[in-house]
Amino acid sequence: MPVSPSDLALAHALADAAGGVIRRYFRADYGLETKADESPVTRADREAEAAMRRLILAEAPRDGIVGEEEGTTVGTSGRQWVLDPIDGTRAFIAGRPIFGTLIALVEDGFPILGVIDQPILKERWVGVAGRDTELNGKPARTRRCRDLADALLATTSPALFADDELHAFEHLDVKVRSTVLGGDCYNYACLASGHLDVVVESGLKLHDFAALVPVVEGAGGVMCDWNGDPLHAGSAGDVIAAGDAARVEDILEALSCRGAGNH
Amino acid sequence: MPVSPSDLALAHALADAAGGVIRRYFRADYGLETKADESPVTRADREAEAAMRRLILAEAPRDGIVGEEEGTTVGTSGRQWVLDPIDGTRAFIAGRPIFGTLIALVEDGFPILGVIDQPILKERWVGVAGRDTELNGKPARTRRCRDLADALLATTSPALFADDELHAFEHLDVKVRSTVLGGDCYNYACLASGHLDVVVESGLKLHDFAALVPVVEGAGGVMCDWNGDPLHAGSAGDVIAAGDAARVEDILEALSCRGAGNH
Repeated sequence: MPVSPSDLALAHALADAAGGVIRRYFRADYGLETKADESPVTRADREAEAAMRRLILAEAPRDGIVGEEEGTTVGTSGRQWVLDPIDGTRAFIAGRPIFGTLIALVEDGFPILGVIDQPILKERWVGVAGRDTELNGKPARTRRCRDLADALLATTSPALFADDELHAFEHLDVKVRSTVLGGDCYNYACLASGHLDVVVESGLKLHDFAALVPVVEGAGGVMCDWNGDPLHAGSAGDVIAAGDAARVEDILEALSCRGAGNH
Repeated sequence: MPVSPSDLALAHALADAAGGVIRRYFRADYGLETKADESPVTRADREAEAAMRRLILAEAPRDGIVGEEEGTTVGTSGRQWVLDPIDGTRAFIAGRPIFGTLIALVEDGFPILGVIDQPILKERWVGVAGRDTELNGKPARTRRCRDLADALLATTSPALFADDELHAFEHLDVKVRSTVLGGDCYNYACLASGHLDVVVESGLKLHDFAALVPVVEGAGGVMCDWNGDPLHAGSAGDVIAAGDAARVEDILEALSCRGAGNH
């Protein structure tokens, strides 16, 4: 079932609802807690996800829900809304307006609609399978990258890589022009708008990457795992985004030393 | 000679001039080049610094100028304007609005006025020795941090540390609650506004740190080098910012393994 106008309207309503909550807590009394996996969570994360869940239950009760904070609600439609209320909670608590709300609609395991919303800057990237990605209603396009040596690479933190992945990342890092750290989902949005060439991460969950895929691919880029395979609900969470499809092989080649042991 | 109203007016005029240039080039055709030290530079850096130099030559011709891109112009007043048109050029080219223009007035080697200006978000932190720091004209204050275990730490990139410094940084990193990467000068601004507790970096130049000192200290924080000594024109460039002065000893203690060899 393709993405309908009402699906798109719901996606916008979800981003609006999350943004309303998040703007109230940004640089304010957000109530920091630590989750079992040691990652931080705030009232903004919990209340933004709850607001989105209420809307889905009201507007699309047959759809399933997978949320970072509250887990999975099984549906009957074969479709799931995949929600990350604040991707980049550390950036949010640090006062940086470059975190994002991620909203994806997944069908048969593949994301067909994705939203990356930055509620402080009021920037919203919307991607739909088979259509052009838009930033606030205007087309967003990735840029060409003729050589990895010209590329601007981003990753949130090298500390998130396992040892063999870090080794592979460093192999890529030395081949590119420059690397920027931090950024979370905002890196993929900047890649979709042609400001970055490559983003490489690992250990992502479905709620971290599902929304990114339609945004990046609808902007002319490619997303895949570190084997070059398409991302879906069963992917392990190692992720590549390339603004120029012609560079994917070079990126895979640079990362291919993963698992070959450290040296 | 204390900071005068005309010094402050000139500082604002410099930030306005740089911001006007930078806004034109953000996410636009900024003309990337690579400097001798392999760091990136753009037309936005060069033209923003040139615009600030013209203003200083017109308004304060006896003052010296130290700029990241054009070097030093010797003055006769004993004062120097220290300029970094874009601190965080990598963030600028990546499309992230969390770089900053840094402007400091240095007298007898010590910064007495500092501006951190984010021209896209139109956020301007202004610090003057002996006065309260302001963000867009409203007081900015650091927050208390009762224990390093509660602290949010930031550094732009661990890759900027020398080996023994990286070892020391990692020693600090495991003691804090969370760490965020990236951010450049925006980290110090967020610390001044009470969103971050600790920023630790090394290898900074005078133009990278001079403006930060009055901003952070006027907000209630402390800046010093990794020996706990005040920062001045002759400092080596290893820098600590602490929002709560009571945590400085803990930070110095955690970093004290520098030079003790890796293990």
